[in-house]
Amino acid sequence: MAFPCLDAIEMRTKEIESRSMVNGPEPSYTTGAHKTFTSKTPMLLDYGGILQEFTIAYETWGELNVDRSNVILLHTGLSASSHAKSNPDNPRFGWWEKFIGPGCALDTDRFFVICTNVLGGCYGSTGPSSIDPADGERYATRFPIMTMGDMVSAQFRLLDHLGVEKLYASVGASMGGMQSLAAGVLFPERVGKIASISGCARSHPYSIAMRHAQRQVLMADPNWNRGFYYGKVPPHLGLKLARQIATVTYRSGPEWEQRFGRQRADPSRPPALCPDFLIETYLDHAGEKFCLEYDANSLLYVSKAMDLFDLGAEYQEVIRKQRERNKHKLSPNHVEELSEQSASQCSLILPSQPYTEQPREDIDASTTTDDGSIPPDLVAGLAPMRNIPTLVLGVTSDILFPAWQQREVAEALKKAGNRRVTHVELGEDVSLFGHDSFLLDIKNIGGSVRRFLEG
Amino acid sequence: MAFPCLDAIEMRTKEIESRSMVNGPEPSYTTGAHKTFTSKTPMLLDYGGILQEFTIAYETWGELNVDRSNVILLHTGLSASSHAKSNPDNPRFGWWEKFIGPGCALDTDRFFVICTNVLGGCYGSTGPSSIDPADGERYATRFPIMTMGDMVSAQFRLLDHLGVEKLYASVGASMGGMQSLAAGVLFPERVGKIASISGCARSHPYSIAMRHAQRQVLMADPNWNRGFYYGKVPPHLGLKLARQIATVTYRSGPEWEQRFGRQRADPSRPPALCPDFLIETYLDHAGEKFCLEYDANSLLYVSKAMDLFDLGAEYQEVIRKQRERNKHKLSPNHVEELSEQSASQCSLILPSQPYTEQPREDIDASTTTDDGSIPPDLVAGLAPMRNIPTLVLGVTSDILFPAWQQREVAEALKKAGNRRVTHVELGEDVSLFGHDSFLLDIKNIGGSVRRFLEG
Repeated sequence: MAFPCLDAIEMRTKEIESRSMVNGPEPSYTTGAHKTFTSKTPMLLDYGGILQEFTIAYETWGELNVDRSNVILLHTGLSASSHAKSNPDNPRFGWWEKFIGPGCALDTDRFFVICTNVLGGCYGSTGPSSIDPADGERYATRFPIMTMGDMVSAQFRLLDHLGVEKLYASVGASMGGMQSLAAGVLFPERVGKIASISGCARSHPYSIAMRHAQRQVLMADPNWNRGFYYGKVPPHLGLKLARQIATVTYRSGPEWEQRFGRQRADPSRPPALCPDFLIETYLDHAGEKFCLEYDANSLLYVSKAMDLFDLGAEYQEVIRKQRERNKHKLSPNHVEELSEQSASQCSLILPSQPYTEQPREDIDASTTTDDGSIPPDLVAGLAPMRNIPTLVLGVTSDILFPAWQQREVAEALKKAGNRRVTHVELGEDVSLFGHDSFLLDIKNIGGSVRRFLEG
Repeated sequence: MAFPCLDAIEMRTKEIESRSMVNGPEPSYTTGAHKTFTSKTPMLLDYGGILQEFTIAYETWGELNVDRSNVILLHTGLSASSHAKSNPDNPRFGWWEKFIGPGCALDTDRFFVICTNVLGGCYGSTGPSSIDPADGERYATRFPIMTMGDMVSAQFRLLDHLGVEKLYASVGASMGGMQSLAAGVLFPERVGKIASISGCARSHPYSIAMRHAQRQVLMADPNWNRGFYYGKVPPHLGLKLARQIATVTYRSGPEWEQRFGRQRADPSRPPALCPDFLIETYLDHAGEKFCLEYDANSLLYVSKAMDLFDLGAEYQEVIRKQRERNKHKLSPNHVEELSEQSASQCSLILPSQPYTEQPREDIDASTTTDDGSIPPDLVAGLAPMRNIPTLVLGVTSDILFPAWQQREVAEALKKAGNRRVTHVELGEDVSLFGHDSFLLDIKNIGGSVRRFLEG
């Protein structure tokens, strides 16, 4: 049996090797021209890491008004750049091209829209592929673990720099929907409205499991080399595999049934172990498009930050105490001790009792958390947002950020005393695209956002 | 940052290498003693492959009655062996231990239960790890592509050998639920009753996508070596990763929320890129347990057979014509021509137009197939089963074989004129375990099966 899908991977490795010799070290990532802001004030991260300085890449659309009160901060999904829309400096289509513009969901006749590449990303903001100023080498996996809160704090440094005291709105979908809420919790006085689309207030086990799978397949690629692949062949195979898994979580919905069903790419050929169903070639293609376009280490760090996301009061308190303990690290005289370094080591901790499951005679379903009861911990955690008008938007066909998570956010906000919560759930009669509806459904997603921001 | 999860993989590779030198070639797979049946009559497979001979491993429980009318054929899931229950020859607990026995779901006071390892498996039945009698070498990826129909046909050869003309019932869950239906369609006169649990009549794109992801990560392991790893280090890392992905599809359900939630394995340690959430260590452990217990090539072939499964009339006709075209291969004088060999090559066929998606102003949801209408092609395909009493059992929390697939089977059977269809759907109030409920829920799954078989 021949394996052209593997031949293609081996071919690419060879091509990259020969290119590298001609053009210098791979890879460098960009989606085109953007502005940058560099903060020279050291930043303490939630888990104790320190960035002595950092850069945030950003782009803007519309005009900042005189009192700087018309700013919308748009947060991205995991792998997106600041290039949400084309502009004179970069005419390439952006990832929310048709949602931004005059009369659009984010109306540039009225609002000044800012979009950043997240901290930890690879499109101009400081991340694992950046040079560590301490030694002039790429950070790679020496980059510190970060959180959604760290990403949002970095964005607010940019807002300080731009002289923006208060946002008209914080808007985002997917990971951006996490960040839009985090902004409201961390900086409630500085956020006028919040729109959180297909996001959540804390990650749930299935979503962690799916990101875990992506990280594991990526780290299994020998080219990943424990993160030190810069200047060498990057783990394009691992990244391709990870993207295919991600695509399943982003897109699978009733729409796949219509679009791919059980069609084979070429029914005249016999089945094979390489891709042959149409859905397989689609996933293969999604992986191919991505595997040299994004930094593998950024995927690891940003996806881990998503796993760690939790706006519950208890976790916020853990982080607060941790920051308190670590703030001495910001002192210019601080020298990191060995014990602190070893604390940041990665650990595989298997439970002392492995999970051995036995069939059960009686299964008690009465303790399920999915019974509509909202955990008090989350109500307390979201309390800082009680005065901020909030749109929470979900899609029934989403399997990654399922609709119960947006219901949970909306209900927790209401229980916290927020009387201006708008909860919209797009059923399967209107939106079949699963999690990625936010990229595709201008009418329902865009329309809801536009009406909310106008109001 | 340290990566003990990668250290562990490298360590295992070294251990296997040193073991192999001492004990001879790895790996050999077994779940213990079993009976075997070897057919020396060549078998033509649905896609044109020929097995000159093949062996089926099987085990039995209970007593065959005088007129051989009390036989239940139990079909397994993807990776299970014939060892469904302990017995004197092999006291080890079986995969359906508590569902088989006196007074159990499959009542051995009354029934003679047969369970086989599927064709293509690695627990005693002929599969890719078997010796090809033509040259004395392991088949590896020279093994022919097979289908559910081929597996079922091999089982019926065993029934012929045992002198069983007609089954009391064909029973199975998951892939076994596919096979139990396939038996009814292929041999309607030889099946008295059918129980199909958490199965389907044809694979849907999400399930194909998830199995595709498993195959791709497995084939990406350099140790897979295009299937020729016997006598060498097997692709234990690829198999571990594949099993982790599979476990997500088998188990994720509301129960994970209760059991794992957002717990970290050791909250006192900082987060890391290796597993640290409890759900991650659980998945890691599931992968560890499996990675040397099952043959990687069997996973590829059997999971592909699941993708190809389709009981629709059109596909059945395609297979029928294919078999007609290929039946000359059974002639003892047949010599395979080069054109036939090349036809079995694997092909990566990307669509001529890659999928580029654009946001849409209006999305028409009216053509969804998930609107409860049952495709006439499936009604026609299941028509051979119209006189067979059938139990179709599904679990609402199953994401791999979602409940709409069992509803589809039940409705299609009714439309085909079957008046003895029992459809049971276990809601989230009773079964939270997702797809794997069939292994765990003795009360609801076992109880339904027992009542159906008694009736």
